[in-house]
Amino acid sequence: MVAVSLNADLGESFGAWRMGDDAALLPLINSASLACGFHAGDPSIMVETVKLALAAGCSLGAHPGFPDLQGFGRRALRMSPREVEAIVAYQIGALAGTAALQGGRVTHVKPHGMLNTMASADADMAAAIANATRAVDRDMILVVLPSTELEKAGRAIGLRCAAEGYADRLYEADGTLASRTLPDAVHHDIATIREQALRMVLEREVIARGGVRLRLEVQTLCLHGDEPGAVESARLVREGLLKAGAELRTLPAMEFS
Amino acid sequence: MVAVSLNADLGESFGAWRMGDDAALLPLINSASLACGFHAGDPSIMVETVKLALAAGCSLGAHPGFPDLQGFGRRALRMSPREVEAIVAYQIGALAGTAALQGGRVTHVKPHGMLNTMASADADMAAAIANATRAVDRDMILVVLPSTELEKAGRAIGLRCAAEGYADRLYEADGTLASRTLPDAVHHDIATIREQALRMVLEREVIARGGVRLRLEVQTLCLHGDEPGAVESARLVREGLLKAGAELRTLPAMEFS
Amino acid sequence: MVAVSLNADLGESFGAWRMGDDAALLPLINSASLACGFHAGDPSIMVETVKLALAAGCSLGAHPGFPDLQGFGRRALRMSPREVEAIVAYQIGALAGTAALQGGRVTHVKPHGMLNTMASADADMAAAIANATRAVDRDMILVVLPSTELEKAGRAIGLRCAAEGYADRLYEADGTLASRTLPDAVHHDIATIREQALRMVLEREVIARGGVRLRLEVQTLCLHGDEPGAVESARLVREGLLKAGAELRTLPAMEFS
Amino acid sequence: MVAVSLNADLGESFGAWRMGDDAALLPLINSASLACGFHAGDPSIMVETVKLALAAGCSLGAHPGFPDLQGFGRRALRMSPREVEAIVAYQIGALAGTAALQGGRVTHVKPHGMLNTMASADADMAAAIANATRAVDRDMILVVLPSTELEKAGRAIGLRCAAEGYADRLYEADGTLASRTLPDAVHHDIATIREQALRMVLEREVIARGGVRLRLEVQTLCLHGDEPGAVESARLVREGLLKAGAELRTLPAMEFS
Repeated sequence: MVAVSLNADLGESFGAWRMGDDAALLPLINSASLACGFHAGDPSIMVETVKLALAAGCSLGAHPGFPDLQGFGRRALRMSPREVEAIVAYQIGALAGTAALQGGRVTHVKPHGMLNTMASADADMAAAIANATRAVDRDMILVVLPSTELEKAGRAIGLRCAAEGYADRLYEADGTLASRTLPDAVHHDIATIREQALRMVLEREVIARGGVRLRLEVQTLCLHGDEPGAVESARLVREGLLKAGAELRTLPAMEFS
Repeated sequence: MVAVSLNADLGESFGAWRMGDDAALLPLINSASLACGFHAGDPSIMVETVKLALAAGCSLGAHPGFPDLQGFGRRALRMSPREVEAIVAYQIGALAGTAALQGGRVTHVKPHGMLNTMASADADMAAAIANATRAVDRDMILVVLPSTELEKAGRAIGLRCAAEGYADRLYEADGTLASRTLPDAVHHDIATIREQALRMVLEREVIARGGVRLRLEVQTLCLHGDEPGAVESARLVREGLLKAGAELRTLPAMEFS
Repeated sequence: MVAVSLNADLGESFGAWRMGDDAALLPLINSASLACGFHAGDPSIMVETVKLALAAGCSLGAHPGFPDLQGFGRRALRMSPREVEAIVAYQIGALAGTAALQGGRVTHVKPHGMLNTMASADADMAAAIANATRAVDRDMILVVLPSTELEKAGRAIGLRCAAEGYADRLYEADGTLASRTLPDAVHHDIATIREQALRMVLEREVIARGGVRLRLEVQTLCLHGDEPGAVESARLVREGLLKAGAELRTLPAMEFS
Repeated sequence: MVAVSLNADLGESFGAWRMGDDAALLPLINSASLACGFHAGDPSIMVETVKLALAAGCSLGAHPGFPDLQGFGRRALRMSPREVEAIVAYQIGALAGTAALQGGRVTHVKPHGMLNTMASADADMAAAIANATRAVDRDMILVVLPSTELEKAGRAIGLRCAAEGYADRLYEADGTLASRTLPDAVHHDIATIREQALRMVLEREVIARGGVRLRLEVQTLCLHGDEPGAVESARLVREGLLKAGAELRTLPAMEFS
C-alpha cells in the first residue's frame, strides 16, 4: 500500500497581517511546517498555529528561513555556513519552545524559500542545515527536495530524509522546481494540481516541462493555502489520494528507507 | 558552609557590535545568562558565547528580553501576558537550539532589563514568564529578584527559584533596585562592589539607600562586564568570596529550599 | 459653504503581506496618510502607494508610528521625547524621499496609533512630534485629534493644525476616542458611520457614548479601508457629503484659522 | 593647487552599541557620511551625529546600505533595482529629516558596503541608486569608486560624481578594492596609509597589488575611525596633506569636471 504525508507551510502571518487560511487547510493535511519568525511568523502566531495544528492531529515541523521579513525569505542572502547553522538551530529551538507551551513536539525540519533553494545546490549550506537539525534532535526528519545536496547532506549524517513533491509547481526536466520568476512556474488549475499529486504518489513520477516523464519518489506532498482556490485544490488532492487507496500519515508515522 | 553562584549576562553583542568582555568574565563566574536575540545577541553570537561558556565550565541560562533591539530591552513595552509567554518560550527555545550545536543544555532563565522590572511588580506578567519557563522544562531554575511577583509566580507553579543579588547596584529600603535613571543607582567603586557582594553572601544582608540594613537571601550574585573596571571588580568579588570560604557553584549545583 | 478633507491611512501593507484596499479607497478620499516603515509599510510599498495616491489626485502625508512592526504601532512603548522627535523626523523624511521618486511632496503629518494616543495626552511627546514636523517643513499641516495636547503643541509653534474626526469610532463624552479594547469602540454599521460623518461635517457635532451631544470642529475625516464593508461605507460617506453640498478638498487646499 | 575632501563613514553605532570614535574623527575630516538605520545607525544616533558633524563644520552625506543590521550591510542581498531605488530614496530622505532637526542639509550620497560593491559592477543597481539620488535632490553629489558602473550611471543622468580613494585599502591592478575577505585587504600600518593617501592626492596614482602603478583621480579620500590606531592615522594623513599644500574642502565646495 502507498502512504504519503500531506504537508503545508503554515503560520506565515505576522503581527497584524494575515497570510493563508491555516484553519481551513489544517484538517486536510498531516504535517504542518511552521514559520519561525525570520521570514514570517512571530512568537504569538507560532503559539496559535501550534495549537491549531495539534488540535487537527498534525505533526509539527520547523520551517526556518532567511532573516528577511520584508522579502519573505525569498531573496538570496549570502550567509556563511556557520551563520546558516546558527539561524537554523535558533529557529528550530524557538519553535520547540513555543510548541512546549501546548505540549507539542517538533518532529521535522523543512527549510523555507530561498534557503531551501540555495541548500539544494550548495553542499556547504546543506551540511550546515543538516548539522543544525541533527544537533537539536537526532530523530528529527529532514524534508528535502529529492536528489539535492540537502538530501545528500542529511543522509550523510544519518538523518531520516523525507523527499517532498509539489503538486502545484512545474518541474524542470532535471527534477528541480521551475523558478518562481517564470510565468508558468505555479499551476493554478485545480485539475492539473490534483493530477500531478496523484501521479507523484501513485505512479512515482511527474510530467516535467516539455512533457518529459520524470521518476520521482516522494514521502510527502506540499499543499498550499495562500492562493485563491488553494484550499479547494488541497481538498481535491486529499480526496483523490484517499479514493485511490493511499494512506495519509504524519511524517513521524511514515517509514523511511 | 556558604555557597553562591556567580552569574553574568553575556552574549550581548549584536552583529558587528561588541558589548562586554565575555571572554574575560567567563573564567570568573559559574553561570552564564545569554541574550537570545530580542534585546541583544544574534544566532551567531549565541553559538559563540555558548562555546565560550561551556569551555569555562559555566552552566547556561536564557536571558530573554523585550523585542526592542534599539532600546536594549530597557524601554517599557506594553505586551499582553499571552504575548509575554510566547516571547519567553520562543527565546528559551532559541537558546536551547543554538546550545545544542555545542552539546549544551539550558538550565536557568533570567528575564532581562525592563521585562524583569515589570515582571517583578506585575503578577500577570510574572505568571506568563513562569509558565513559559516551566512549559519548556520543568527542571528549569528561574532567577528572580527576591520577594517579587516573579518569585511568587515561580514558586506557585513549583519552579526552583534562585534569588539574585546585585553587587554593583544600589538597593532601595524596600528591597527593590534603585532605578537606573538615578545618578547613584550603579556603584562604580570597586571596594564598594566587593564589600556589598561579601555582605550579601556571608551576612545575608545589604546596606540600602540611606544606610538601611536590609535582610536579603540570595543564591546567586550578578556580576557585570560592560563597564570599565567591571572585570577587575568581578575578580575582586570572586577572590573575596573564595578567601572567606564561600563555595562557588553553577546554578544547577546549588541547593534550593 | 462647508469644506472637509477626507483622509485615510494607507500603505499599511508590509513585504508580502497586504492590508487594506488602497486602490479602491483612493478615488474616494482627498488626502492620504502613508505608513513610513516603522509600524507598517516598507520602502517599496511606500513608492507604490505614493504612485497610486498621486494618480488619484490626493495630497500626501506621513503617518509615523512607533518602531514596532509586530504590534502595528498599537502597543505603548516608553520612548523619551528626544527619541520620539528623532523617529518622527526620520519617518517624515523617509516618506519625502520615496515620494520624490514620483515627484510627490509631503504636506501633512498624522501620528499613528499609540503614538497619536500618547501624544494626545502627554505634552512632552506632543511637543516632540510638533517640533519634528516643523523642523522638516514649517508649512507642514499637523493632523490632530481636537482639543488634545498635540493640537496645543502644534498651535504653540505656529503649525497649521487640521482637527480630525472619525466617522467609524465611538467618542467618549470628553471628546476622546473610546479605546479600541472596548467592544463597541468601532462602528461597523454603514448607516451609523454615514450619519456620524455627516453630523460632524455639517452640524459640527457628534453623539458620544450615552447619547451625549458633543461640539466638534473638524477639518478632516478619517475613513478606513481595512475592514469588510469599509470601502462601501467610505463611498456612502463621500456621496452623502457631496449630496449635502460639502466641498471635498486636499488638506493643503483647506483653510485653517 | 590640489584640493581634496576628507570623508569618513560615521554614525555607525546602534542603540546601546558604539562603533567608531566619531567625536575624535570629525575634526579631522571635511565630509561626513552617515549611516541611515538600515545597516547601522538609528534615528537617535543620526540626530546626535548630525549635531557633531555640523559643529565640526563638515558637510553631511547619506550612507545608505542594505536592510541587514546583523550583517552590517556587508552581505550580498539580492534585491531588484526597484527595491534598491526605494531603499536608497528612503534612507536619503530619512537622514534629511533628522538633519532638519539641526538645520542641516544632506549634500552627498555614498552607498555602503555590499550595496556599493554590487552597484560598482551591476549597471541596473547603479542606475537605481543614481536615480534615487537625483530624484531626492538633483544637486546631490554621488560619491563613487572611480571607473565603476555607479560612476557611469551617475554621470549619465547628470549628477556630480566625486571619485573616492581609500588610503587604507589594497587596490587590485584593475582599480577595484581587494575583497575584505582577503588577509591583506586592509592596511594597518600607519606609514603605509599616509603614503597611499599622499600619493593618491598629490600624484594621482596608487600602488596596487603586486606593485602595479595605477592612475587614479580622486576628489575625496575615505578615512576610518573604527580600527585601533585609525584616528591617529587619519591625523597623519590630514597633516601630511596640509604640509604638502593640499587644500581640504567639504564635498559641496569641491569643483567637479
